[in-house]
Amino acid sequence: MAEIMIDQERLLRRLQELGQVGRDERGRLARLAATDADREGRDLLVGWIREAGLELIVDRIGNIFGLWRPDGAEGAPIMLGSHIDGVVNAGIYDGCYGVLAGLEVVEALKRGGAPGRRPIIVAAFTNEEGARFTPDMMGSLVYAGGLSLEAALAANAPDGATLGDELERIGYRGAVQPGFVTPALYLELHIEQGPVLEREGLEIGVVENLQGISWQEIRVAGTANHAGTTPMLMRADAGLGAAAIAVFVNELANRFGDSARATVGCIAFEPNVINVIPSRARLSVDLRHPDRGQLEHMEAELGRFLEQLGAKHGTRIETELLSRFDPVQFDQDLCELLDRKATARGFTNRRMTSGAGHDAQMMARICPAAMIFVPSRGGISHNPREYTGPDALAKGATLLLDAVRELAER
Amino acid sequence: MAEIMIDQERLLRRLQELGQVGRDERGRLARLAATDADREGRDLLVGWIREAGLELIVDRIGNIFGLWRPDGAEGAPIMLGSHIDGVVNAGIYDGCYGVLAGLEVVEALKRGGAPGRRPIIVAAFTNEEGARFTPDMMGSLVYAGGLSLEAALAANAPDGATLGDELERIGYRGAVQPGFVTPALYLELHIEQGPVLEREGLEIGVVENLQGISWQEIRVAGTANHAGTTPMLMRADAGLGAAAIAVFVNELANRFGDSARATVGCIAFEPNVINVIPSRARLSVDLRHPDRGQLEHMEAELGRFLEQLGAKHGTRIETELLSRFDPVQFDQDLCELLDRKATARGFTNRRMTSGAGHDAQMMARICPAAMIFVPSRGGISHNPREYTGPDALAKGATLLLDAVRELAER
Repeated sequence: MAEIMIDQERLLRRLQELGQVGRDERGRLARLAATDADREGRDLLVGWIREAGLELIVDRIGNIFGLWRPDGAEGAPIMLGSHIDGVVNAGIYDGCYGVLAGLEVVEALKRGGAPGRRPIIVAAFTNEEGARFTPDMMGSLVYAGGLSLEAALAANAPDGATLGDELERIGYRGAVQPGFVTPALYLELHIEQGPVLEREGLEIGVVENLQGISWQEIRVAGTANHAGTTPMLMRADAGLGAAAIAVFVNELANRFGDSARATVGCIAFEPNVINVIPSRARLSVDLRHPDRGQLEHMEAELGRFLEQLGAKHGTRIETELLSRFDPVQFDQDLCELLDRKATARGFTNRRMTSGAGHDAQMMARICPAAMIFVPSRGGISHNPREYTGPDALAKGATLLLDAVRELAER
Repeated sequence: MAEIMIDQERLLRRLQELGQVGRDERGRLARLAATDADREGRDLLVGWIREAGLELIVDRIGNIFGLWRPDGAEGAPIMLGSHIDGVVNAGIYDGCYGVLAGLEVVEALKRGGAPGRRPIIVAAFTNEEGARFTPDMMGSLVYAGGLSLEAALAANAPDGATLGDELERIGYRGAVQPGFVTPALYLELHIEQGPVLEREGLEIGVVENLQGISWQEIRVAGTANHAGTTPMLMRADAGLGAAAIAVFVNELANRFGDSARATVGCIAFEPNVINVIPSRARLSVDLRHPDRGQLEHMEAELGRFLEQLGAKHGTRIETELLSRFDPVQFDQDLCELLDRKATARGFTNRRMTSGAGHDAQMMARICPAAMIFVPSRGGISHNPREYTGPDALAKGATLLLDAVRELAER
């Protein structure tokens, strides 16, 4: 029996090869969901799935699965997945790493003659990024029953095309019903897309939860007036209100502990003229916390601040909730197993919260799920500078393999 | 001898009539300098100057003067002026009121048979607003020797036309050298364009000085990062930096007394995406103070704040001085005379600082100058809602008349 280990070299080679598919005329990677570029990437993946001797399954929302059912493997399968669609000007690791490492895990187990007691499915979900069709994480959301197949297939791209037609066109509108099997558990390996592991010099993040997200637009209405002639005490300065909100939002995050995040990413003033007091201001507020109660508490504190602010400045303040996702708790048993396996290999590790959305959060609706993070250089992702070194990639895949070996025996 | 008084009815009628000249297809008043609309307005004014029996003088920068030289009036003239050009979507009072009230003063004196010992010139300066050609207050600036005639005539409109060609085209490139006479003094009557008189229930503002102005653009450079995955302590948030600056700027004005002003009118974030920490932010800072030393002190305090802020947030901050005008002190003797005349008429009054620029600040370079303000409803100007009631307009013009009667005897 050969030593059971990841083929690190092939994993890296496939990542590079897939990363060349979908470059535009400027060399930018843009493998958006259900485009010709996506078809080309899917074809490559399907080739590798077949090469590995796995059964290919494509469901009605275009999710691609490679199923390995060893002799005697019974019961619900273990699913290892992520996605291969990307954003415009993407890096090569986000998503692809999880899919290709999953494939390596299966191939290592096959090659090593170590069939477990459970089938293993490698999954590549459709339209995780949401860069062409809304919502994001669509393929896994449909798979988990959170969005109807019909609604998802009817989603429109900015050019008017529907996802259903585009999947048909590229040959990836499959015949199998999404959710055709409920996995025993789901694991997803991913680059961190944040700076924590790199800054702390750690090799593995065991992701135990995923932040809840609250997106609001806040609109402040004041009175436009001349910047020279209007005394400070007679102003209703919408821009000043917006600035005060942005400063408060930052302080708010700092008060809610290390896991809290608060960001003002967008702002606009009207009339946006140097010598006119702004009559209107809009800003976005992105609040995140892995604890639902704490997230609601953050929202409530912001609401109280806005009430006081409006009264103080003579401005009228409106808020609109744009989006809200509850936090996701991953499976504690899976996390403990991942902690243990990482430590057994001598990989330095910590528990983490994911600040980004992942297919794992959708799969957590229907089965125990957890994630493994490896460091991202500079915390950069969705950018050609996205980078994780070969050793770090190999360690993540090795941990996934170790975990699956034990889980396949349960 | 008839009672010497303003023809209030005619003043109002002329304001309305001039205010109909230069309406665009949407009904918006837009009598921008040296346009066809401006020609039409100028033609109307010139007709009134001739009707009043004054000598018409047009100088090389297109300033229009109506000169009344009574028999025996010697020495340097008294100049009463303002402008009749406007902004896009203007009101009807800004500028026109001062010119037309000056004309009424001369006509009242003529009609009343009260020639003084000095000639009186009514002036309408070219391109005070700067809405089509830069800089603003151009006609009076050239008249006062602060800008060469050649440079002013070469100023380009956004459509590429030069002011010189446009004045030629509309027939208002005159033959007389700007500055052809140095007035004994200059008085300008104007609507306040701010809320102070109305809020305080006063009828007259005697303008003793004009704020110095400092315009800066501040650019903050941080690092774009994912709003969910990047811990608060690992951020270099350019948007937060900009917001903190805007809040500080407001506090700064409040620390420098009632006459200080500070406004952030413009702001922009990059990439301006809801879930991305801004990598760059730009904002404008408009600081004003009637005391030059205090204005410089405000700038210095802002500079110190920016140094500390950059160090604290890990951002890089650059500032660019866009524009700087020193404060202008008007003539104290003229102000005292205006105080006295207003009080003698029973017009409630106060001393004021002008927060907006006016031709009087340019004329103050070459002769004693002062201004009279009347209330603006809601402090609104540069807007169709600009409004000052008939009584208030009459009181301002009456005060101007009273002042000129005494000054013409000096």
